Amino acid sequence: MKVTSKFERSRRKYKPKKTDAFTHALSNVSASEAEDGTVRFKSGFDFSFAGKRIGNVAIVLSDRLRPGVCNCIAGVHEAIVRHSPTSVLYGAVSGFSGFLEDGLKEITRNDVSRRMNRGGYDFLGASDFKPEKDEQFETIARICRQRDVNLIILIGGDELNSVLLNLSGYFESNDIQIRIISIPNCVNGGKTPGFSDYVFGADTVSRMYCEAIGNIQLESASSAKRYHFASVSGPNASRTLLECALACQSTLTLIGEEIRGKKLTFDNVSDAVADCVKTRKIAGKNHGVIIFPDNLFEYASDTRLLLRELSSIRRERKAATPEDEMEYLSSASLNALNSLPKPFRSGLRKCFSKNGQIEYSMIETGYILAQKVAEKLSDYYFNYEIHDLDFEANCAFPTNFDCTYSYNLGICAVLLGMMGKTGYVAAIDGLEKKPKHWLGLGIPLQLLMSEETRGDRKTKVIRKYSVDLNSKLFDRFRSVRTAFMLNDEFSFPGPIDYSSKEIEKPYFIQFSNEIHLSEHGNYGY
Amino acid sequence: MKVTSKFERSRRKYKPKKTDAFTHALSNVSASEAEDGTVRFKSGFDFSFAGKRIGNVAIVLSDRLRPGVCNCIAGVHEAIVRHSPTSVLYGAVSGFSGFLEDGLKEITRNDVSRRMNRGGYDFLGASDFKPEKDEQFETIARICRQRDVNLIILIGGDELNSVLLNLSGYFESNDIQIRIISIPNCVNGGKTPGFSDYVFGADTVSRMYCEAIGNIQLESASSAKRYHFASVSGPNASRTLLECALACQSTLTLIGEEIRGKKLTFDNVSDAVADCVKTRKIAGKNHGVIIFPDNLFEYASDTRLLLRELSSIRRERKAATPEDEMEYLSSASLNALNSLPKPFRSGLRKCFSKNGQIEYSMIETGYILAQKVAEKLSDYYFNYEIHDLDFEANCAFPTNFDCTYSYNLGICAVLLGMMGKTGYVAAIDGLEKKPKHWLGLGIPLQLLMSEETRGDRKTKVIRKYSVDLNSKLFDRFRSVRTAFMLNDEFSFPGPIDYSSKEIEKPYFIQFSNEIHLSEHGNYGY
Repeated sequence: MKVTSKFERSRRKYKPKKTDAFTHALSNVSASEAEDGTVRFKSGFDFSFAGKRIGNVAIVLSDRLRPGVCNCIAGVHEAIVRHSPTSVLYGAVSGFSGFLEDGLKEITRNDVSRRMNRGGYDFLGASDFKPEKDEQFETIARICRQRDVNLIILIGGDELNSVLLNLSGYFESNDIQIRIISIPNCVNGGKTPGFSDYVFGADTVSRMYCEAIGNIQLESASSAKRYHFASVSGPNASRTLLECALACQSTLTLIGEEIRGKKLTFDNVSDAVADCVKTRKIAGKNHGVIIFPDNLFEYASDTRLLLRELSSIRRERKAATPEDEMEYLSSASLNALNSLPKPFRSGLRKCFSKNGQIEYSMIETGYILAQKVAEKLSDYYFNYEIHDLDFEANCAFPTNFDCTYSYNLGICAVLLGMMGKTGYVAAIDGLEKKPKHWLGLGIPLQLLMSEETRGDRKTKVIRKYSVDLNSKLFDRFRSVRTAFMLNDEFSFPGPIDYSSKEIEKPYFIQFSNEIHLSEHGNYGY
Repeated sequence: MKVTSKFERSRRKYKPKKTDAFTHALSNVSASEAEDGTVRFKSGFDFSFAGKRIGNVAIVLSDRLRPGVCNCIAGVHEAIVRHSPTSVLYGAVSGFSGFLEDGLKEITRNDVSRRMNRGGYDFLGASDFKPEKDEQFETIARICRQRDVNLIILIGGDELNSVLLNLSGYFESNDIQIRIISIPNCVNGGKTPGFSDYVFGADTVSRMYCEAIGNIQLESASSAKRYHFASVSGPNASRTLLECALACQSTLTLIGEEIRGKKLTFDNVSDAVADCVKTRKIAGKNHGVIIFPDNLFEYASDTRLLLRELSSIRRERKAATPEDEMEYLSSASLNALNSLPKPFRSGLRKCFSKNGQIEYSMIETGYILAQKVAEKLSDYYFNYEIHDLDFEANCAFPTNFDCTYSYNLGICAVLLGMMGKTGYVAAIDGLEKKPKHWLGLGIPLQLLMSEETRGDRKTKVIRKYSVDLNSKLFDRFRSVRTAFMLNDEFSFPGPIDYSSKEIEKPYFIQFSNEIHLSEHGNYGY
C-alpha cells in the first residue's frame, strides 16, 4: 500500500510566495522588452495577455533533475488554469523519447497538488534522449498539432539547451507556431543583464551537502583521529562546493577552477592535500575534512587528458580489448595513468557509458585521492573515510526558497509562451531582494551563448557554470581558507529548516553580501 | 573564527523532558531493588539519596559514538550539580588511553550547555583502547584517588562492556571504593526484565537513514531507469535496516540475520537481488532501491569464513606478502574469494586494521554486490548507483527522543553510582509510554550476558544486538515485503522534525505497535 508520510503531507501545505507581478496572475501583468530581446514582467494591466489563447501546453523533463521540478510544473499549471481553464497541461512520459511516440499524459490538478513542494518527479519519467533530426522535429510538430499544443516547456540541464536552440530554430524557419521555453538547471549567465545563474534546486542541494559535511565534521572533531574526504556532485558542483566551504569552514576545499587555472596535475593536488595533513600533524592534529568536486579528474590537467583519450578510444571503438586501450594512449596520458595508485588503474575503464561518455560518479575519486595522499605520507598511519554526496541531496525536498523560485519560474515560462516568445529561457531577476520584489524575466538563449574556438573553427556554445576566480565570493574564500586549514574552525550548519514560513536567502547570496552564517539571513517574512 | 550556526543556537534551546522521578532530581527519588539486582527509580522521598556524598565523577567515551552523547554528559552534569554543587565532573581526554596518563579535564557548565542537544563530542576525544591488565587498573584507581573520583561513567559500545566487567570486578575484589556504571550504545537485552535494547542514538540514525533512502527512492521513481544500492552501518545495523525497510517501503531489503539463518552464500544473496531485478523487468520496471547492512559479508556463510581466515592470517602474520595469503586459505574460502567479481578480489586485503580486525566500512560491499548482480544479468543493461550511509547520520543532531532519552540515562547513571552500585548498566524502562512515565533502571551487566560455547569451553559473552526473526516487527516486514518488491510502494519519510516540541516515538516502537508512518506517532506532548 502506498503511504504518504507525515512530513510529505505537512510539507504540501507550504504556500510558495509569488512575485508582485504574478500575484494576480495574468490579468495584471505587463511585459516590457529590451533591445536585446530580454523580457521583463511587472505589475500593471497589459492588453498583451488579456484574451490571448494559450491552447495546450506540454512539459518535457531531462534526466537528473534537482529539487523544485514539481513546483515548476505547479507554477505552469497555475498560470494555465487561471488564464484558460479549458487548456490541458501535458507531460511527456520519459522525455523526448516518449514524446516522439505520442507519450503525452495529462497532468491534473491532483497530480500537481500531491507533489507540491516535493523533490523528484515520479509521474513522468525522464530521458537524456535529444531529438536532432528534421524528421524528429516534424514528428514533434505533428503530435503537438494533434493535441493542440502551442507551447513546449523544457525543464532540465545542459542537454535541453541545444534542443531548445535547434527545435525552436526549426519551428521558426518552417513557420510552425509552437513556442519553446526552457527552465534551465545549469547555465552560466555571464554578464547577461538580470540573469541569475543561481538556478532552482541549487539552494536545496547546497544546504543538504552542508548538513552532511557539518555532521561529518562533528565526527572528525569528536574522534579527532581520521580524515574524511567528501565529494559533491551536480552540474554546478564547484559553486556548490564554494558555498559549502564557506558555510562549513572545512579544513581543505579543492576548487576545480583554481586547479585548472593553475594547471595543476593530479599529483600536484595530492601534494596539496598531503601538505595540509603534514602541517596539521606538526600541530598535533590527526583529523580533518577535505571536500572536492566529484569531477576533480576533469580539472587536473593530466587526468583530464587521460579521460579524454580513454573516452575517444571508447567512442571510436579503436581497441579490441581493455588491455589494448593502453596502446592508443599518448605518453602523457600513460604517465597520468601510472601516477594513480596501482589498484585503481584498471578501474578507470569502468567509468564510461556505452557511448564513451565519462561518468564521473563511477570514478572512485575519493578513494584514489586518499590512497595517493597516503602513499605520500608513507611513515604516517593515515586513517580516512570516503563520502560521495550525491543523490540523497539531489532528490531532497526543496527549501522554501527553491519552492518559491521554481513556482515563479513556471508562471514566467507560460507568460513568455503566451507572448509568442520562443527559444527563451525563463529566469528571475533580483534574487537578493524579497520574493515579492523579484522580477520574472525571459532571456533569448542566444544571449547566454558565447563564441568558443574548437579545433580550427569558431562555434557558439552555451556557457556552463564555473566558479569565477575573480568574484567576491572566491575572494572571501581565499581570505579565510588558511585559517580553516590551520585552526579547527568547523561550523555545523545543521538541517534545512522546513518548518519555518520564512524564506532563507541562499548561502550564495548571503556570502556574496558578507552575511555570516550565524546571522539572520532570511528575506524577512 | 569559530562560528555557531543558527540551527545550533536554536537547537540548544530545546529542553529535554525528564521522567517523573527525575523531575525534582535527587531529593525525591526512591529506589527499589529486585532480587536479580535490578534497580528501579520512582518518585518519592528516599533516605538513600539524601545526604549521600557523590564526590567527583569521571566520564570515559569510546570511539564511534552516536547522537546523544552530549546529552548523556549533560544529564550526568545536572544530577551532580543539583545534588552536590562542589563535585567536579571530569572527562577523560581520548578515552582510557588518556585516563592512564592522568588526562582528566574538567567538564564545565559552559562545555555542557554549548553542546546541548548536539551530535558529536568534540571536547574530549575518544579511543578504542581498553585497559586489561592489573597494573592499568591500579593506575586508574590511583588517578581516581588523587582526583577524589568515586564514580566512573562509561559511554559507548561493546568494547566498554568488557571494561565495565573487568574493571568493576577488579575494584570490588580489591575493595576499591570506585563505582563503574555504563551507558551502552549497543547491547542486546534479550529477555532481561525492563531492559530496552533500543539504545540512545538509534532513533536519530534510523531517521537520518530513512531521509536519505526516501530521497534516493524519489530519484529512482522519478528517473525510473536505475537501481540504487544503499548500505546502512552501525552496531545495530540490522535493526536500523528493518526500521528503514518498513518506513521507506524499499524495493528489497537484505536482512543479515535471515541470510545467516538460511545459511545463504554471497552468491545466493546475489541471486535473490538478480531475481528481483528480473521480475521487475518483466513488469516493465527498470529501477528500484536495495538496502542492506554494510557488514553483509559477515552474514553470508562463505564470505564470513573468508574474512575470518584472512583476519587470522593477518593477525598471526602467517604470510610474508599479500600474494602468499592465498596459500593459507582453505579451499572453501578460496572458492568464496573466486566467486567475487574479479576487480574486487585483491581489494579485500585492504579491509583490515593493523591488528587484523575486519573493517567493514572499507569493504566496497555495494559495488561488489551490484557487480555480481550485473554479471548474472548479462543480457541486460544494469544501471546502478552505490550509496554508503554512515557518518553523515552517525554524527547528526539528535532527535527530541534521543535528546530526552540520553539526558535521563545520564541522571540514571549518577543515581546508580550514588547507591553504591557498580558493574551496572543505566537503562530506561517503558519507552513506549510518555517520557514522564519512563522508569530509570539499573541492570547488572551480568544479567545481559549469556553463555556461549567457543571451541571446547563455555564462556559468558555480552549479547550483541541482532534482529529477532520471530519478533512482531520481523513478522510485519515478512507480510509486506513481496508487495514492496513487486509494486512501487516507496514512502518518503523526509527529514527529522527538529522544530517541533513534541517527541516522536521511534519507528521501532511505532511499528512494533502497528502504528503506520502516516499516522500520528508521537507521545502526545
